[in-house]
Amino acid sequence: MNGRMIAKILGSVLLLLSGVLLLPLLVGLIYGENVRGFALTIALSAALGLALLFCLKPKSTELFARDGFAAVGLVWIAMSLIGALPLVLSGDIPRYIDAVFEVSSGLTTTGASVLPNVEALSRSGQFWRIFTHWLGGMGVLVFVMAVMPLGGDRSMHIMRAEVPGPTVGKLVPRARKTAMILYMIYLALTLLETVFLLFGGMSFYEALLHSFASAGTGGFSTRAASIGAFDSAYIETVIGVFLILFGTNFNLYYLVLIGRVKDALKSEELRWYWGIIAVCVAAIAIGLRPLYGSVGTALRHAFFNVTTIISTTGFGTEDFTRWPGYIQTLLVCLMLIGGCAGSTGGGLKVSRVLLLVKTAGADIRKMVRPRSVNRVSLDGQRVSRETASAVYTYVALYMMILFGCTLLVSLDGYDFATNFTAALSCMSNIGPGLSLIGPRGSFGIFSDFSKAVLSLTMLCGRLEIYAILILFLPSTWRKN
Amino acid sequence: MNGRMIAKILGSVLLLLSGVLLLPLLVGLIYGENVRGFALTIALSAALGLALLFCLKPKSTELFARDGFAAVGLVWIAMSLIGALPLVLSGDIPRYIDAVFEVSSGLTTTGASVLPNVEALSRSGQFWRIFTHWLGGMGVLVFVMAVMPLGGDRSMHIMRAEVPGPTVGKLVPRARKTAMILYMIYLALTLLETVFLLFGGMSFYEALLHSFASAGTGGFSTRAASIGAFDSAYIETVIGVFLILFGTNFNLYYLVLIGRVKDALKSEELRWYWGIIAVCVAAIAIGLRPLYGSVGTALRHAFFNVTTIISTTGFGTEDFTRWPGYIQTLLVCLMLIGGCAGSTGGGLKVSRVLLLVKTAGADIRKMVRPRSVNRVSLDGQRVSRETASAVYTYVALYMMILFGCTLLVSLDGYDFATNFTAALSCMSNIGPGLSLIGPRGSFGIFSDFSKAVLSLTMLCGRLEIYAILILFLPSTWRKN
Repeated sequence: MNGRMIAKILGSVLLLLSGVLLLPLLVGLIYGENVRGFALTIALSAALGLALLFCLKPKSTELFARDGFAAVGLVWIAMSLIGALPLVLSGDIPRYIDAVFEVSSGLTTTGASVLPNVEALSRSGQFWRIFTHWLGGMGVLVFVMAVMPLGGDRSMHIMRAEVPGPTVGKLVPRARKTAMILYMIYLALTLLETVFLLFGGMSFYEALLHSFASAGTGGFSTRAASIGAFDSAYIETVIGVFLILFGTNFNLYYLVLIGRVKDALKSEELRWYWGIIAVCVAAIAIGLRPLYGSVGTALRHAFFNVTTIISTTGFGTEDFTRWPGYIQTLLVCLMLIGGCAGSTGGGLKVSRVLLLVKTAGADIRKMVRPRSVNRVSLDGQRVSRETASAVYTYVALYMMILFGCTLLVSLDGYDFATNFTAALSCMSNIGPGLSLIGPRGSFGIFSDFSKAVLSLTMLCGRLEIYAILILFLPSTWRKN
Repeated sequence: MNGRMIAKILGSVLLLLSGVLLLPLLVGLIYGENVRGFALTIALSAALGLALLFCLKPKSTELFARDGFAAVGLVWIAMSLIGALPLVLSGDIPRYIDAVFEVSSGLTTTGASVLPNVEALSRSGQFWRIFTHWLGGMGVLVFVMAVMPLGGDRSMHIMRAEVPGPTVGKLVPRARKTAMILYMIYLALTLLETVFLLFGGMSFYEALLHSFASAGTGGFSTRAASIGAFDSAYIETVIGVFLILFGTNFNLYYLVLIGRVKDALKSEELRWYWGIIAVCVAAIAIGLRPLYGSVGTALRHAFFNVTTIISTTGFGTEDFTRWPGYIQTLLVCLMLIGGCAGSTGGGLKVSRVLLLVKTAGADIRKMVRPRSVNRVSLDGQRVSRETASAVYTYVALYMMILFGCTLLVSLDGYDFATNFTAALSCMSNIGPGLSLIGPRGSFGIFSDFSKAVLSLTMLCGRLEIYAILILFLPSTWRKN
């Protein structure tokens, strides 16, 4: 472990955090709120950051994969622990564990909330809570890389640990340039959505915050009834379309930017992603028609809820815990699948599920006809056995953490559907679950212990397990 | 596909079925019941069997792996469809789909029942229903091999397809001898349990039938309240111990028989199996103590329910859907794990879960220290990447079928916990689930469509997927 180098990275991020916190402070000043909490946290974060940056000089700048993973894990945990402070100090969220849960949920773009009434928050607190979605969506460290020169290709390790899915980082060889391009696309899409939402009659403040929450595929809202509070088919359609866009692999936007639109559209993952959405919208609309009377309303609710769940956002309009059972099961399957690799969405990712299905298919064919050659390929390229094996390991770890978290959370004594979907929702970074934690429920019902477990599960899900898992391995902390 | 050879195997089995059905017919005659249904089915089965055996002469006796799998799949489906007839003809189970579900559940040793009142069955019907557990437990075809000379080593394919887990068939080179040894151990243990149960005050009829149901780790009972009806700590302990024995890899008994007791006790799978049981009994007893007052009663219920679930039997004493939430989650995890490979138990099997954990651990260590050598070994032997990959594929298929079945069953409109645990219970061949299908519930609540889906899922689970899956692949039916 290159501890000093990791400390340097952590220092840069804390410095950045103090800078980013100026935004909610500014919002507080505009609305004449007490901003003492933000000011104190900014001072603390800056002091800690400077201390780490300048007191510990790295002896070597070499950064191995495990250092990159550990740095990312520590950064996200530090962000959650320090980012929770202003909400506690301002009195918005009186209990620290609740604030940590809320900020972890924000940064990991989960969108699960423990708050009894989100509309009671101060403007600055609300801004910070939802801005964490935007920050976490594209990765805190990717942002750091875009802004600060951490140097050379070694930052690729960080990028690989932080940006979801197995395919990122192939755009351009230099990590910093890649980070810049990703953030430009991200910013442009966010602003575009804000404009569209303004046309739907939202105030600038709400349009911006809901765009932040969509961009990160987070799901926090300024309203207790979430998007349902606006009761507008236009707003739901706009958000649904943007959620599909933010759940798409950002590499494809780069391809579109350099004019290779056809190549982008050939992506197998994209086609499956669209296919799954189309099939599920149709299947759910059929079940909703009797409930809502018209085909149009059924399609509207089906489209919004499919996009908000598969992109792992978790905005709510209707209470789907009251919908027919098969729709709930479909939504649980969508929670598991999640968005595309290299998007801001969570879940297992469409490409992983696709590789899983293809590898299983190849293995079955091999069994039926042992002498046939069965290669698994994606986008016309052969997938190596190592990649397939990595996908399998990931899915196995995902399931183990899912059941482990369910077990720990079930100590609180709620029903199985609540416990299992709470774990799934946090692991896949969705937000709502079924039973007691549906779109009308709250994670506030859980004990402090469960909130801590679920916060860690959210981080595991967002950072694709390894960056968090590595912190718990004794061998990580042994001297070389 | 060697269709004629498969037809020959199917014919042998149908002939055997007509012979086996003489047993319930005899029971019916002893108790003076109407045995017309059994007589008719015996005639039909014998006629069909003879027709298949003598009308279609195989051109070649060559049997490839896929032929073996397809034969096993077809045999089990045929057994379920024909074995259901006497129950319908006798009026015990008026509807054919219910009888098919019940017999599939019996043969696959699931033990899920659609009957409103099991105590209303005729003696002969009850005997047949529970005897299917014993027949299915060790595999119908293994029985055929032990009794009829199907010839040579090629029957090994059948054995591999039918006996659970990845390690069977290494005992002795000749399939027939292996089958004989397995059935002798199986029979001896069954009779031993019967004797122990007689000492507990059960009638011979009930002691025998409950021993059949334990041996197959099935879970059907002659009583509506299952083992709870006897309310005897002695009976529960005896059955619990035998369930552990029947959930153990039968290869180990062979080792014990030839005096290699130490080698048997060194089995890693066995140690994990015992370890999981011990930890879960302790963890559950802690949660049950406040409910039942005394440590003794808590341990008694914890021991019985852990053994009945991990061995995938599903006998009931207490209604665990009323126990604390974490206990239900633990039981769901045990349902997934199941018994040992090469036992009569279902589930993923302890050795598969063990390999999954070990492989995932090796992959993580590899990530932390890329240059380290990480070999996965089981019982001191190195596990090849192919074996590990096969385990992963199996688990992936298991999960896909589990969620697919949940989705289809959820069309009936029940809650998620009911649908998910119904699918899990059938896939792992347990019997009960949670919510509406707990120890006090019944699968009779499901629609005919769901019953058919669940029957097929039970067969998938019992035959470890491939033997059923292969029947649905178009390439299986193409000419070579």
